[in-house]
Amino acid sequence: MQQSSLIKPVLGGAYPTISHGQGVFLYDKKGKDYLDASSGAVTANIGHGVQEVMEAMVKQAKQVSFVYRSQFTSEAAEELAEKIAELTKGDLTYSFFVNSGSEATETALKIAIQHWQEKGKPRKQKVISRWMSYHGITMGALSMSGHPIRRERFTSMLESYPSVSPPYCYRCPLQLDAHTCGMACASELEASIRRIGSDNIAAFIAEPVIGAAGGAIVPPDGYFQKLKKICEEHDILFIADEVMTGFGRTGKMLACEHWDVEPDIVTFGKGMSGGYTPIAAAVMTKKVMEPILGGSRSIMGGHTLSANPLSCAISLAVLKYVEENELVEKSGDRGKDLSRGLKKLARKYSFIGDIRGRGLLIGLEFVQDKVAKTPFPNPADVTQAIIELGMKNGILLYPAAAGLDGVTGSAIIISPPLTITEEECAELLMRIDITFQQFNETLGKLPS
Amino acid sequence: MQQSSLIKPVLGGAYPTISHGQGVFLYDKKGKDYLDASSGAVTANIGHGVQEVMEAMVKQAKQVSFVYRSQFTSEAAEELAEKIAELTKGDLTYSFFVNSGSEATETALKIAIQHWQEKGKPRKQKVISRWMSYHGITMGALSMSGHPIRRERFTSMLESYPSVSPPYCYRCPLQLDAHTCGMACASELEASIRRIGSDNIAAFIAEPVIGAAGGAIVPPDGYFQKLKKICEEHDILFIADEVMTGFGRTGKMLACEHWDVEPDIVTFGKGMSGGYTPIAAAVMTKKVMEPILGGSRSIMGGHTLSANPLSCAISLAVLKYVEENELVEKSGDRGKDLSRGLKKLARKYSFIGDIRGRGLLIGLEFVQDKVAKTPFPNPADVTQAIIELGMKNGILLYPAAAGLDGVTGSAIIISPPLTITEEECAELLMRIDITFQQFNETLGKLPS
Repeated sequence: MQQSSLIKPVLGGAYPTISHGQGVFLYDKKGKDYLDASSGAVTANIGHGVQEVMEAMVKQAKQVSFVYRSQFTSEAAEELAEKIAELTKGDLTYSFFVNSGSEATETALKIAIQHWQEKGKPRKQKVISRWMSYHGITMGALSMSGHPIRRERFTSMLESYPSVSPPYCYRCPLQLDAHTCGMACASELEASIRRIGSDNIAAFIAEPVIGAAGGAIVPPDGYFQKLKKICEEHDILFIADEVMTGFGRTGKMLACEHWDVEPDIVTFGKGMSGGYTPIAAAVMTKKVMEPILGGSRSIMGGHTLSANPLSCAISLAVLKYVEENELVEKSGDRGKDLSRGLKKLARKYSFIGDIRGRGLLIGLEFVQDKVAKTPFPNPADVTQAIIELGMKNGILLYPAAAGLDGVTGSAIIISPPLTITEEECAELLMRIDITFQQFNETLGKLPS
Repeated sequence: MQQSSLIKPVLGGAYPTISHGQGVFLYDKKGKDYLDASSGAVTANIGHGVQEVMEAMVKQAKQVSFVYRSQFTSEAAEELAEKIAELTKGDLTYSFFVNSGSEATETALKIAIQHWQEKGKPRKQKVISRWMSYHGITMGALSMSGHPIRRERFTSMLESYPSVSPPYCYRCPLQLDAHTCGMACASELEASIRRIGSDNIAAFIAEPVIGAAGGAIVPPDGYFQKLKKICEEHDILFIADEVMTGFGRTGKMLACEHWDVEPDIVTFGKGMSGGYTPIAAAVMTKKVMEPILGGSRSIMGGHTLSANPLSCAISLAVLKYVEENELVEKSGDRGKDLSRGLKKLARKYSFIGDIRGRGLLIGLEFVQDKVAKTPFPNPADVTQAIIELGMKNGILLYPAAAGLDGVTGSAIIISPPLTITEEECAELLMRIDITFQQFNETLGKLPS
């Protein structure tokens, strides 16, 4: 029986107690330092202990922390919505604020459905999604998520399941050659739409770079352009889940910009507040909102704390910090340095099968045999072992699912705060080198 | 086309911009004051601008705002979990922290299912719920919610629907006499379990006092004891949704204490942080957790910001404030004063059909004819008119659904911060009297 009343991921497991944080470092109560190479769960985009955020927090709290959005608006919420409209390209104009990425997915789903209802097409309700995806843990969001481990306990209760293969070229789900495949995985979207019937489909949702469900999988150029075209041809909204990638993580403000694709709805979370407060958003283009603005003028959704002034003021300070410190550009530059360094390590350690990602969202997939790409027989144990060794060596790493079924592969994500300096990148690489070296030494002991 | 980028409940509607708040008052940018008689959405339980909360916020933010729960624990999160275990009676010991009431419902659902899975009963997945209930807007939570207006757009996508009538004695759903009914509405739970089969049912969920979906409906004594007994006899967990009622709102720490009923799982939100930060919780007894602690030792669930130190420190400060200022007792006392005052008004205004509630969660249902209990033909307009008049008169009121179908009735909730003084109660009554007087004058103009 565990002693603590706090439910942790592993019940009865040992978790160091945090003391404080500064920049890319966290410190536990015993004085040990950890280089936050994962930004928590790819969240702490501006690092820890940023003074400007603290000041904005105190300023807003001195005025008012909470008002209910059905009664009042606030300058903080209005300015945050304006800032998001300004930072995103194209027509993404209208923000609906919620408390988490899961809620942002649920909100995007609801607004997509309502969009079609108000256009007189109430049967358009389904959302098509891909395997190797994660959009949240609430039932509506989980239903769209192609993450078998997280679905497993609730599969029979989920309204739907993904129907499209991911662009996982390292292990092509369709077993095609990347040079001749013609992006058949993108064509699957069209086949799926035809099977289900576009009259029944509200939207297609995808992460521009696949996160926790695949370990930073980047699609080939042309892939998202092709998907967007299919969506347009079949009158289906495109929802980009930028909860992990938004606001600079991949070296662009939005990851969709890598391919000049404009989503109809975008979801944000994580980096939107850098972890300084729970806040997330679904952001809509004018096209999506027009039938609602000209129709019921009321979106069915919202949470008690939606658009609360304190969380909005904190998020606004974080986004201003990203902008003023040119963290989007820095993410691109440091990402290149870090990838180069990791590629050097891959030549040293045979268990590094693939290095992928964009900007400061970098994925490493681990294999038993680099040439045959043979996965480890115990992939979850491998990931766990590397993460635990990392903790011991003072470096935080983020586990990711991998393998064709999301279970038989082993991967981690490396995603330090966008504020990381060149010196800190060198330190990160040193700590990860030690960690890999130690893991390499244990390899002989692994069951085969 | 609305000018603002912020999506509000009514698009293009006019919302005053908040300036600041202090105690039970909020002030807009034009200097107008509002007595917060609704605590926002029954949330601001300790009022606005509380210095102790600000101090706890700053202290924690100076150390660290965010760490990921898979990597670290924090004193703030541990202490908050301990404090909740201490404040709740009986065996409620284990807290899982999330960001909203909706997420708390989804987490309770998942843990109830997992409880049975780990006891070797994987078919026990359904959650039975009541009509006139609201448990959240995410798809899993909405599926359990008996709130027709909020379900309407998504009905065909919801996994389930409620199957039990509410204890709405003012308009008995079974058209029985309260003296001779034998609480047939509670017996419906047993009938429902037999129809669906207890082998398929994980839990029953209910709000101890029905909130937004009914306007503070309090069940008769013996009702919850009967429900709990039925749950026990059929091996079904009882989830109490105390998101609105928890931490003193009804004059007890938990509303379930009014009837000495101990839930197996409780959900909290709203008053848990008084609106100072988005945080909520599902709290489990040892009985619920035992098979998991002795089984997989891992709960499938959790959000990026779950148990973040800053939100936990804020919530802890709020709960300490409730305890140290004896707000639970005050809620009971002021609730009695306020109910007395409102009953006087009910004698003056014929459109007040029913006054109900407990502590500082008071519901008023409006009717065209007090004796025949005839509802207004345009119930939503009536609610809206009263709330808008209240805004003009500087008093904030909370709309609630009412009527047998949750649509044909009109109700509001009066739920000021638990810190409200006797003088402020008098001011509240004065402002509401003026509001009702003005509404009364418009009544002749209403379409009949």
